[in-house]
Amino acid sequence: MAIVVTNVKRPSPASVEALSAFGVATVHEAQGRKGLLASYMRPIYRPAHICGPAVTCELAPGDNWMIHVAVEQCQPGDVLVAAPTSPCEDGYFGDLLATSLKARGVRGLIIDAGVRDAATLTEMKFPVWSKAVFAQGTVKETLGNVNTPIVCAGALVRPGDVVIADDDGVVVVRQEEADAVAKAAAAREANEAVKRTAFERGELGLDIYKMRERLAAKGLRYVDQKDLKD
Amino acid sequence: MAIVVTNVKRPSPASVEALSAFGVATVHEAQGRKGLLASYMRPIYRPAHICGPAVTCELAPGDNWMIHVAVEQCQPGDVLVAAPTSPCEDGYFGDLLATSLKARGVRGLIIDAGVRDAATLTEMKFPVWSKAVFAQGTVKETLGNVNTPIVCAGALVRPGDVVIADDDGVVVVRQEEADAVAKAAAAREANEAVKRTAFERGELGLDIYKMRERLAAKGLRYVDQKDLKD
Amino acid sequence: MAIVVTNVKRPSPASVEALSAFGVATVHEAQGRKGLLASYMRPIYRPAHICGPAVTCELAPGDNWMIHVAVEQCQPGDVLVAAPTSPCEDGYFGDLLATSLKARGVRGLIIDAGVRDAATLTEMKFPVWSKAVFAQGTVKETLGNVNTPIVCAGALVRPGDVVIADDDGVVVVRQEEADAVAKAAAAREANEAVKRTAFERGELGLDIYKMRERLAAKGLRYVDQKDLKD
Amino acid sequence: MAIVVTNVKRPSPASVEALSAFGVATVHEAQGRKGLLASYMRPIYRPAHICGPAVTCELAPGDNWMIHVAVEQCQPGDVLVAAPTSPCEDGYFGDLLATSLKARGVRGLIIDAGVRDAATLTEMKFPVWSKAVFAQGTVKETLGNVNTPIVCAGALVRPGDVVIADDDGVVVVRQEEADAVAKAAAAREANEAVKRTAFERGELGLDIYKMRERLAAKGLRYVDQKDLKD
Amino acid sequence: MAIVVTNVKRPSPASVEALSAFGVATVHEAQGRKGLLASYMRPIYRPAHICGPAVTCELAPGDNWMIHVAVEQCQPGDVLVAAPTSPCEDGYFGDLLATSLKARGVRGLIIDAGVRDAATLTEMKFPVWSKAVFAQGTVKETLGNVNTPIVCAGALVRPGDVVIADDDGVVVVRQEEADAVAKAAAAREANEAVKRTAFERGELGLDIYKMRERLAAKGLRYVDQKDLKD
Amino acid sequence: MAIVVTNVKRPSPASVEALSAFGVATVHEAQGRKGLLASYMRPIYRPAHICGPAVTCELAPGDNWMIHVAVEQCQPGDVLVAAPTSPCEDGYFGDLLATSLKARGVRGLIIDAGVRDAATLTEMKFPVWSKAVFAQGTVKETLGNVNTPIVCAGALVRPGDVVIADDDGVVVVRQEEADAVAKAAAAREANEAVKRTAFERGELGLDIYKMRERLAAKGLRYVDQKDLKD
Repeated sequence: MAIVVTNVKRPSPASVEALSAFGVATVHEAQGRKGLLASYMRPIYRPAHICGPAVTCELAPGDNWMIHVAVEQCQPGDVLVAAPTSPCEDGYFGDLLATSLKARGVRGLIIDAGVRDAATLTEMKFPVWSKAVFAQGTVKETLGNVNTPIVCAGALVRPGDVVIADDDGVVVVRQEEADAVAKAAAAREANEAVKRTAFERGELGLDIYKMRERLAAKGLRYVDQKDLKD
Repeated sequence: MAIVVTNVKRPSPASVEALSAFGVATVHEAQGRKGLLASYMRPIYRPAHICGPAVTCELAPGDNWMIHVAVEQCQPGDVLVAAPTSPCEDGYFGDLLATSLKARGVRGLIIDAGVRDAATLTEMKFPVWSKAVFAQGTVKETLGNVNTPIVCAGALVRPGDVVIADDDGVVVVRQEEADAVAKAAAAREANEAVKRTAFERGELGLDIYKMRERLAAKGLRYVDQKDLKD
Repeated sequence: MAIVVTNVKRPSPASVEALSAFGVATVHEAQGRKGLLASYMRPIYRPAHICGPAVTCELAPGDNWMIHVAVEQCQPGDVLVAAPTSPCEDGYFGDLLATSLKARGVRGLIIDAGVRDAATLTEMKFPVWSKAVFAQGTVKETLGNVNTPIVCAGALVRPGDVVIADDDGVVVVRQEEADAVAKAAAAREANEAVKRTAFERGELGLDIYKMRERLAAKGLRYVDQKDLKD
Repeated sequence: MAIVVTNVKRPSPASVEALSAFGVATVHEAQGRKGLLASYMRPIYRPAHICGPAVTCELAPGDNWMIHVAVEQCQPGDVLVAAPTSPCEDGYFGDLLATSLKARGVRGLIIDAGVRDAATLTEMKFPVWSKAVFAQGTVKETLGNVNTPIVCAGALVRPGDVVIADDDGVVVVRQEEADAVAKAAAAREANEAVKRTAFERGELGLDIYKMRERLAAKGLRYVDQKDLKD
Repeated sequence: MAIVVTNVKRPSPASVEALSAFGVATVHEAQGRKGLLASYMRPIYRPAHICGPAVTCELAPGDNWMIHVAVEQCQPGDVLVAAPTSPCEDGYFGDLLATSLKARGVRGLIIDAGVRDAATLTEMKFPVWSKAVFAQGTVKETLGNVNTPIVCAGALVRPGDVVIADDDGVVVVRQEEADAVAKAAAAREANEAVKRTAFERGELGLDIYKMRERLAAKGLRYVDQKDLKD
Repeated sequence: MAIVVTNVKRPSPASVEALSAFGVATVHEAQGRKGLLASYMRPIYRPAHICGPAVTCELAPGDNWMIHVAVEQCQPGDVLVAAPTSPCEDGYFGDLLATSLKARGVRGLIIDAGVRDAATLTEMKFPVWSKAVFAQGTVKETLGNVNTPIVCAGALVRPGDVVIADDDGVVVVRQEEADAVAKAAAAREANEAVKRTAFERGELGLDIYKMRERLAAKGLRYVDQKDLKD
């Protein structure tokens, strides 16, 4: 009953391009703090930053067969997003598959499992976010789905959604919201630039964000250490 | 009922300066193996080494409001030490707050939670020891205390205690013991320098520390492999 | 009842040399996917790669006494493999012991526990694979065995077995299988070199490994996204 | 921007009733091994078994405000399914909220976080599956969504989907697939009953499932221990 | 430099008695949500509930020597609270020590480590909260302190502080605050009793706590499912 | 290359019978504190206690095929010990396989992975020690070995070794040491019985084990709380 969905609609290159200017934290904020993958998803080398439409791949535990099927569905600029159907840290992916994805113009791999050949992947500058680095091999026996919606590291990823990954982790943006999120992210960055200048000259967040009154209203009190008794 | 304790007494600059010459392992040994934070507290980049008096900050889970309050209490040379009241890996801290702390001369952040903008913090060379790197945002709704004693990653930290952090983790020295610990650390390093020379020329710890007799007394036996039967 | 086994038989230098040409993933595959240590065993700096016969060391929790005993049993080219009798993350090993091992020509340390002085070990280029970096000190009170078979991070390691470690983790090869595994690894790498060239020119694993027929037989179907109903 | 979706369509009582005859493992198999929540979701007392349509609730970390909002959306027979937007083990739920849910006829709670008053919940026989039991309190400051699709412990749950929970964990069945899954589960159980009888009389799975030929074809060999050399 | 502090001041029996009427969640709330030990501290059998003044005991990893020293410092009604100086899951405590503590009238053990003889402890009805149940033995080689302040499972515990433990975990109340906390807990329970009655008759928290207006002010919107578009 | 070793030599029924009188902690001590499986191996119901010769089974991740092969190798009184070749929490085992093992007179299952049908296994009183309870299904595609030495939860288990499991965990005794260990365990229990009587009448471990002098020699000091300054 496994299927491969072909000819998946992707967001326009302009949408992806727009989003690719931003980091994960900014995009996550700009879309209302959703779509973040779990904190255990870490880049195998740093710094790293990618952005592209997702090709999704569901895997059996300890079985990387469907990655080979997924590779064929990848187009230049895509990001491969893979997850096993139950937790597994085996090394599903190494330098040969990276060579194949690189040859197809794929921007990187997000996998809720392990990868291996970490030193070679680092030399090749093929970026990977994974749950583990582990030499354990996998088999090729069990089918899974390609380009169906999957839950990867706690987040729902649908094929064609935009994935952004950097040193802070991985976030997914729904394809239909890509343009709005890019716009919101740009606004957020412009706002942060102003704040950064204020912080650089020594202004306090208490004043920049006008927090003092609300803190006092909630009951915050200042006590000199010499007036404390304990 | 939240309070901010102001005008916290700090150790003398000379005490801090004296301690800053040593690494975490040395200081930890010099003070009788206490004050170490849990091993999950890791630097976001390596190598990194800081030393300074603690400004402490208690946080609600998923809420970084009090960090803004704590920033105002920081003086040049301080280290901000923050912990949530229950375990949380959210990204409490990013490049804007780092800019603010840097502008105030703060030496680094120790936080028993997550941080974000890891790539920018690394570029800025603002050192952070944290439990996680995670883009998840926080809110600003709930009060906590600043400059009261807190437990951070399993260790008691009081405001004005000296915090030393490096690639091995984080250790806290009680303010009133800072000078004694610095002296003991210096003695320890001098002793280790002698040992290092002996090790470099190939001497064995068994001889340097005169362990052979005690090992034999405890019952250690040497058996040639060819005399083993199994 | 603790023993130190002396004059342990090691594989021939040629066997070790042959194996040292390969990475952990390759060796693990070449010997039928066995002998891998748990994925939490990570190098303290990257990249790193070592290969050599194991001197094994069983430790009490929080007690590094037997490392000093084991050092004496090490010969140039050896790898020290140590494990506590119950899980422990204390810092059993630091720069002094590294100096001692280096002076004896030891290639590196594999320890299912913590180490400290990570910055110095990195500067010294003494490679270590460990479960943790943690400044916590240990005592010298309890005996253990040296050069008896141990389970380290889930794998059985016997003295004289060959240990290979790199960025992907750690694998152990039985001494009597070293030559056969080296041969199989070489064959595997030759085969992979051919595959890599095919992948580089854009060929798919589906074709290189002739997977399409078997996938279809298992029931994999391709569906155009526009024909999906949900 | 938080919303509460009202008048959520639920499956027919007959569909729920049909599914409620089966355990989690059976349902999970019957629907092609999907929809399982993570293994850390455990019942606070055993044995326990519930089945009902999901009311979903998205929570801020350390903030249980939206549970009160969700209670109003619950109808008799429902199961409340709640998840924080980032990992949190705080005690979101205790005996007062359980009293409220019980008064409304709710069958139980599934929460990817902590609960408290575990002894009272056990006495009340109000079943809960959670990530932790922890007395830590929560605040009521931040909005979330009710009855929107959520990811709970790694599985996508939409309002009105059917949730089945027992000692083995928690599984979710898509509303539109409820009847088909119940039918497949019944077929599976009938088949298992036949097998169970065979197993009880001492027949082997090797024969019942006719595995011997395929095992031999894959290369399995039988060797008498006395013919082993090692 | 290890010390045993004798003749530790304890709270009045009346204070302890007053606190013993309440569960951990109630006490934790009544004292402003502080003093909670980590959620991994679990009772070895359920239900269980104890309350008493703490005798504290600092242990070396894998070494239970100081528990024997601490036993002598225990008085009837006390609770022994023990923690290793670095994380350890060894079985520090079994039925012989439990027999000894029981003979002295000690109410239970809180230990941030492992215990063994769990079946016998359960039969004896000697309550224990621990991090693990593990048969691994310990040695008796290294000193630690008795009745000095310790951090146990993330909480500061001073000798003579009151410890309450039940199925929800463990909380510590500062000795000097015991009476005030007991009073606040009683008030809280009285308040909850009123609420419980309201919940039992089907009233909603939204109304009992008058939340509707504040939710609306924060922006919560109600949308009928049939008006949703997606 | 997978093999099944047949006609495995087992210890005499008398040896197994002798060992079956003791708990895991006692046996572990009696054999010099070795052979303990990791603390995460927990019984699915308590109390539970079994003892018998091991039939070992190596599994692929997410694949329970070899359990069916192993069942045929089991004799009455045996204990099945199974471990995947890389960490996996899938539900390898449920009530049908338990029925099969029970029909063959097998005493229980030790598995470094997950099991399912926990409620039924509990009703059947078929004891299982596992890493997880999880409904996730497995496939039957990949071979492994039966009755070869395996590492299970960190301990080496050879076919025919004696496995003892109870509420404290699981320990393995080498077949050739079974009689000696049973004798040592009996001696230990006799000794403990004497101690227990002393503890019951209120004697202290400090006196029973004559620890006072050695504690003083190590430097332990007693200080009255009123003489402490801090």
